[in-house]
Amino acid sequence: MTGSSSWRALRRWLAEAVESRDRPAFPRLADMSTAFDRVIDASREASLLESTASILGWDQETMMPVGGIELRSKQLAQLARMRHELFTSKAMGDMIGSAEGSVERGSAEAALVRELRRDYDRDTKLPSTLVEELASVSSSAQHEWAEARKASDFNRFRPWLERLVHLNREKARCYGIPAGGETWDALADGFEPGCRAADVERVFRPLREQLTGFIDRLMASPTKPSNRFNETAIGIDRQEPFMRLVAEAIGFDFSRGRLDRSTHPFCGGSHCNDVRMTTRYLETCVNDALGSTMHEAGHGMYEQGLPSSWIGTPLGQAVSLGIHESQSRLWENQVGRSRAFWSWMAPKLPELLGDAARGFSLDELYGAANIVERGFIRVEADEATYNLHVMVRFEIERKLIGGQMEVADLPSTWNRLYREIVGVEVPDDRRGCLQDVHWSMGAFGYFPTYTLGTLYAAQFFEAATKAMPGLEAGLARGEFKPLLTWLNSNIHAHGRRYLPGELCERVTGKPLSSEPYLAYLKGKLSPLYGL
Amino acid sequence: MTGSSSWRALRRWLAEAVESRDRPAFPRLADMSTAFDRVIDASREASLLESTASILGWDQETMMPVGGIELRSKQLAQLARMRHELFTSKAMGDMIGSAEGSVERGSAEAALVRELRRDYDRDTKLPSTLVEELASVSSSAQHEWAEARKASDFNRFRPWLERLVHLNREKARCYGIPAGGETWDALADGFEPGCRAADVERVFRPLREQLTGFIDRLMASPTKPSNRFNETAIGIDRQEPFMRLVAEAIGFDFSRGRLDRSTHPFCGGSHCNDVRMTTRYLETCVNDALGSTMHEAGHGMYEQGLPSSWIGTPLGQAVSLGIHESQSRLWENQVGRSRAFWSWMAPKLPELLGDAARGFSLDELYGAANIVERGFIRVEADEATYNLHVMVRFEIERKLIGGQMEVADLPSTWNRLYREIVGVEVPDDRRGCLQDVHWSMGAFGYFPTYTLGTLYAAQFFEAATKAMPGLEAGLARGEFKPLLTWLNSNIHAHGRRYLPGELCERVTGKPLSSEPYLAYLKGKLSPLYGL
Repeated sequence: MTGSSSWRALRRWLAEAVESRDRPAFPRLADMSTAFDRVIDASREASLLESTASILGWDQETMMPVGGIELRSKQLAQLARMRHELFTSKAMGDMIGSAEGSVERGSAEAALVRELRRDYDRDTKLPSTLVEELASVSSSAQHEWAEARKASDFNRFRPWLERLVHLNREKARCYGIPAGGETWDALADGFEPGCRAADVERVFRPLREQLTGFIDRLMASPTKPSNRFNETAIGIDRQEPFMRLVAEAIGFDFSRGRLDRSTHPFCGGSHCNDVRMTTRYLETCVNDALGSTMHEAGHGMYEQGLPSSWIGTPLGQAVSLGIHESQSRLWENQVGRSRAFWSWMAPKLPELLGDAARGFSLDELYGAANIVERGFIRVEADEATYNLHVMVRFEIERKLIGGQMEVADLPSTWNRLYREIVGVEVPDDRRGCLQDVHWSMGAFGYFPTYTLGTLYAAQFFEAATKAMPGLEAGLARGEFKPLLTWLNSNIHAHGRRYLPGELCERVTGKPLSSEPYLAYLKGKLSPLYGL
Repeated sequence: MTGSSSWRALRRWLAEAVESRDRPAFPRLADMSTAFDRVIDASREASLLESTASILGWDQETMMPVGGIELRSKQLAQLARMRHELFTSKAMGDMIGSAEGSVERGSAEAALVRELRRDYDRDTKLPSTLVEELASVSSSAQHEWAEARKASDFNRFRPWLERLVHLNREKARCYGIPAGGETWDALADGFEPGCRAADVERVFRPLREQLTGFIDRLMASPTKPSNRFNETAIGIDRQEPFMRLVAEAIGFDFSRGRLDRSTHPFCGGSHCNDVRMTTRYLETCVNDALGSTMHEAGHGMYEQGLPSSWIGTPLGQAVSLGIHESQSRLWENQVGRSRAFWSWMAPKLPELLGDAARGFSLDELYGAANIVERGFIRVEADEATYNLHVMVRFEIERKLIGGQMEVADLPSTWNRLYREIVGVEVPDDRRGCLQDVHWSMGAFGYFPTYTLGTLYAAQFFEAATKAMPGLEAGLARGEFKPLLTWLNSNIHAHGRRYLPGELCERVTGKPLSSEPYLAYLKGKLSPLYGL
């Protein structure tokens, strides 16, 4: 064993020696390549740096010792800078231009080039002085936000949020406000291509009315599902293999991914063949880890379902945050909180989780996964009330960015909207308008994607059920494969070929609406609450 | 928990937004910077890419799902290429040139610039056609070697080794054969700066004579230490926390490093504040994992002891593979196989490893850590016979590279030398000349660093014992800090300020010799074998 030694040093030396210096990562003979081939190679080269950064990001949250943080941020900054230099170069612009002339209208190749153009234009539209300022202000603002939140002191954060709002309006102007649209749209477009505030509102308004009325009735009902299973302590050493088993059962491929722990569950990784998801464990509540695991596995299976032949190009990437969220919500909610899922799971629980999980009826288990409660914290909200939290934020950020509201009025507006929409009295700013990190980082236009995802999930699941009448019965037997295969071929395989709205119409035959979600929610919760 | 969600996507978006595009990783105001400052910034920029690659390399061996391999090699190739482009640019050469004129002779800064010049010259001396060819040939050769080894079929590997030897002689010529030296020297210099075959031989010749005679006597002795502890099965779930405890006890800082598992133990990581080491576990033998863990912790503590103020420059890097190996061997052997260490450990064993580890006397434990046996596999060899394996390889590669031996004669020469030097009959080429990966990867001049490390370890430990007369008594009480502090200030803190030979003289007052090692080995093994 004395020889176990410098094998690593050898590997490192060889990595440098063996991986030749002047070869691009995806080589192609110059004189054989078309304009399309060249632009793909360039896209892959830039995207490879992103995939490296993504592994480093995952490592930072799961594995990195605390001492590593200082250099890690330098490593990530370097990769981001290099990627930006590659992707926004004049050469890249020229290659996209040439490729645009060489692809066939309506083809997958044309969609790829269209999306590269979209990314290129967005990335090159901001002057670097603005990028610098946004970077520096949001870096300080995050720190100030964290301190302000701790102290529940909105005034400390206020001047920073004012600057961020100002800079983001500037940013929106650089991107260009779409014809007939508003300032907020230009920002939201970065998260959800083509997203317009007016469209969001058109969906949110009836949804809000329906939801608040329905939740009022749920809360007023004397019948409530049992919460007993959520109050049952189960050791984390038992939960961990259980979560792995569930993730594997629903279709997450562990030969192309991992499941680890982190403070905030997330799904990252390099590409479809190396997906890194995480969850977290509470000894007091298995459903917390189960929800997180199925949610992240949904994101993970989307990533794994992207076509590997298009890695490093827009056709190998997810459509939007909303569509991504639809996949996580679908597995977490439509599957993981269904009676079918729990009928499959109930008889296995004692063996998998030990004696503490013995003696629960199917009704108790199914009920515990579907407790509805009004609260003031978004990330703790249930499937029904969650969207109300999002609506508050949408209404506020739309007005802040649109210039119809002052930052100074944020706490009072927030508290009023929580009273009106969510139906709760916000106790303080820490648990009120200071609870989310997003704005402090300059992310405006992001929040609605959470609810859009919820709505897409219900609409997709409805279409899947229509296409496969035996779906629910299958889920109750632990047959998850047909659903995953359906999602693979209808959604995942397309990468960014279609815009979110187009994809929705292709898959479901209809534009996005809140009806499938409301029908699903009412259909499930009404019997549980005795309505 | 429905909100656990796209936190990751948010993070990723922000990493790009927040880390500004045009800032270098280590910014400095241009008009305040000197030539020295500028060259340091450039060195750090290039080195940052290496540190990223190093994390990816660690991840590949410990965490990455199998599906990730294809893109991982592209990621690593891209980083190596970018690093090479940065580091071998004309601008870098000019900066080094300017810095050379601006540093004070004999200062740390001068050493830093000297080492940058050394790296730059080596990296720019090879024509890219040769680099390409070496890369492509060694990539195929590794595959052919693996197949040939499996089939124990040397003839399959022979043509590849012939090409590699030829290309490496070419490589040595490009580097330049040192005055009064030989071809092999130019290659070895990449692993051990200043290393000459003639010097190695001067050290190895008397060592070989002494060692073979001594091992003959050990093997002939009727007295042998007990092997009983090595035959005791201990669950890996008990071994794992034990190894962590030992690594922590001897001084590995877990706030700046990790210990994981991998097939081949190694020590990697980004830099002194993020050191990643691994070990492996055999249920049948705790000493296997213990040896590996203390060995890698020795490497790891060297890395952690490098000055963080010089991260990304030669003064923040290890001197050579030989000196690196001295640190691993010192903790594995001089400490981990000492009577002092086992007197400290013996009473704790049953509590730490369970009942199976109960009832061993100190003599049994100490003896089991020091079994000597002749074998034909290098990586399984013990502290005494290991160096004989290295000598066989040194003799062969020196002649192959020097042109005094044909590749076709490798098996017969190998087997003859094993008979003469190690004293065993090689059963077949798989367990003979095909056992090591090094040559198949084109690494000639690497092997002797294993033995140099062993000799440096003994000489350093002798100096430490002289400097701290209470050292051994302290080790027996579990006081490892004084030794680590001594190594920190005498060796680690200097980075690459001194060449290996210089460092040895500074630390021990003498040039490298095999005497301290032989005295140490005989002093320990003679009583154990009743000589």
